[in-house]
Amino acid sequence: MSLIIDCHGHYTTAPEPHDAWRAAQQAAHLAGTAAPPYPAISDDAIRATIEANQLRLIRARGADHTLFSPRASTMAHHVGDQAVSEAWSIACNNLIARVCGLYSETFTGVCMLPQSPGADLAASIRELRRCVEELGFVGCNLNPDPGGGHFSHPPLTDAYWFPIYEALCELDVPAMIHVSGSCNPALHATGAYYIAADTIAFMQLLEGDLFARFPTLRFIIPHGGGAVPYHWGRYRGLADMLKKPDLAGHLMENVFFDTCVYHQPGINLLAEVIDAKNILFGSEMVGAVRGIDPTTGHYFDDTRRYVDALPVSAEQKHAIFEGNARRVFPRLDAKLKRMGQ
Amino acid sequence: MSLIIDCHGHYTTAPEPHDAWRAAQQAAHLAGTAAPPYPAISDDAIRATIEANQLRLIRARGADHTLFSPRASTMAHHVGDQAVSEAWSIACNNLIARVCGLYSETFTGVCMLPQSPGADLAASIRELRRCVEELGFVGCNLNPDPGGGHFSHPPLTDAYWFPIYEALCELDVPAMIHVSGSCNPALHATGAYYIAADTIAFMQLLEGDLFARFPTLRFIIPHGGGAVPYHWGRYRGLADMLKKPDLAGHLMENVFFDTCVYHQPGINLLAEVIDAKNILFGSEMVGAVRGIDPTTGHYFDDTRRYVDALPVSAEQKHAIFEGNARRVFPRLDAKLKRMGQ
Repeated sequence: MSLIIDCHGHYTTAPEPHDAWRAAQQAAHLAGTAAPPYPAISDDAIRATIEANQLRLIRARGADHTLFSPRASTMAHHVGDQAVSEAWSIACNNLIARVCGLYSETFTGVCMLPQSPGADLAASIRELRRCVEELGFVGCNLNPDPGGGHFSHPPLTDAYWFPIYEALCELDVPAMIHVSGSCNPALHATGAYYIAADTIAFMQLLEGDLFARFPTLRFIIPHGGGAVPYHWGRYRGLADMLKKPDLAGHLMENVFFDTCVYHQPGINLLAEVIDAKNILFGSEMVGAVRGIDPTTGHYFDDTRRYVDALPVSAEQKHAIFEGNARRVFPRLDAKLKRMGQ
Repeated sequence: MSLIIDCHGHYTTAPEPHDAWRAAQQAAHLAGTAAPPYPAISDDAIRATIEANQLRLIRARGADHTLFSPRASTMAHHVGDQAVSEAWSIACNNLIARVCGLYSETFTGVCMLPQSPGADLAASIRELRRCVEELGFVGCNLNPDPGGGHFSHPPLTDAYWFPIYEALCELDVPAMIHVSGSCNPALHATGAYYIAADTIAFMQLLEGDLFARFPTLRFIIPHGGGAVPYHWGRYRGLADMLKKPDLAGHLMENVFFDTCVYHQPGINLLAEVIDAKNILFGSEMVGAVRGIDPTTGHYFDDTRRYVDALPVSAEQKHAIFEGNARRVFPRLDAKLKRMGQ
């Protein structure tokens, strides 16, 4: 019996004072004044949000452990400046740490980074180290487009990013490549921006040779890898045209896709074209799509059902649910072993 | 026996003087001088490029008719200004008209439009009318991001676009939603930008109510609809969350996907989740991916093989190969009937 490890959970239900502080912080930045002090939030307030939402769903759907990060759409790296982003990141990551302290057996932290469009990655590296070394986090979310929807940042293969890759390798933690909310009216966040950014990120990696330089760097591309598995022939063909090695060696020792694809045919395709060793169970819950699929009677984001129904071997299913997460997140594996799991 | 109608072919192999003129036109624009006169290109020069490429492949792969448009990546609406774009569009569309004159039984024209980032759509409407009414074209390619890779244009549901929609409805021709080359180093054209833009366009349409205003407007989203079929559950769920009608009525009387998906599992997924009435055979050739798939021994973009292998009814296959193209492009249907087909 495998542990069911969900590699992609967000604290989309944080207590109201947390979000109210964010609004006050933004208003203060615009006014040129200091942000108010971060509010006191009780353990009970945190428990109330988690037990009514994530924990309830985890229990109902039969997951065991969730890698938990701040709400992706409100990371909003395009808002304010480096200092605003850093204070907000610290607040969000500290809140995640409290959840993981209260429910250590179920949640392990993945941090957001204080990226900011005009800034280098020094603050992000500082916060990554704090979260991993002091708070026990096991990964981070890295935003490939901190500008919020115009793709104006250098590609992920550019030397701009190398300092954070060095830190990721040194700490032996992976990054999920995850944009935040869109400030572009042409791009709906969860329906357009996320999926487009996932696809774009993969192609950036395909064009480059990043993993020759960083052979132990590991990226999870969420939402089932964007469009990539559906267009797997296109990407294999483009690698050939660009004189790149076969994707198996060029990218797929280092790149992983989650299972946040909200219908059975999509998950079937994912498992058909992508090796099981590259697929990590994820649900993105409580998340982007909260309703019930009228064609199945089940929640769209109850992705465990789709994986359970896959026509793959028990060994492959174990890899998707547990083995790959332990391998990609070795600090999670160590924590689970300390817990006797 | 169905006609095999390829709804998505580009003149990627135009005679060299055509591209040389484009380079001279751009240089003249930068220098503030007049572009040189467009060169004389002989029928034989055109025949040589078509017979060695598109026609050879069409015959080898067993297609009957191709909807043929200028090379997508070199439409480059972000280059120059409205006048540059208009002169280039006229040159490209006239060249397509010559191909369609020389090979009327095999090619029918689809025009590019002289969009330009800062301009309204008056020139595009003028050129659309010229191509349809004078040159016998049956559709156009509409670029949702004429800026070339930063998605800074208003969404397709914005009133900015309504004048061209009115013209499309009046002329009863559809538009393929197709971006051009990328001037953004973060976005590879055929591997990232095209697929991202397809996905973004669909979500723009989902968020709006465009077809309530333009019930006869028809869009083809190429490259198999970007990521949309793979994430069909997400889009159904988002429609529900956004209080939109079921996608069948909200979008799928007006939106069509082509089959430019370069492996069997992708085409299988497309046909599994999208009604056959919404799928048009297309190959994008001679195109984005030109190599041979080592896992099959066949060209990646020989998409007829994938459609032939679909486990769908003969009626559905007929719709994909022929019936839908006749319905979506009524002016093509009329031409084919005049030809006795």
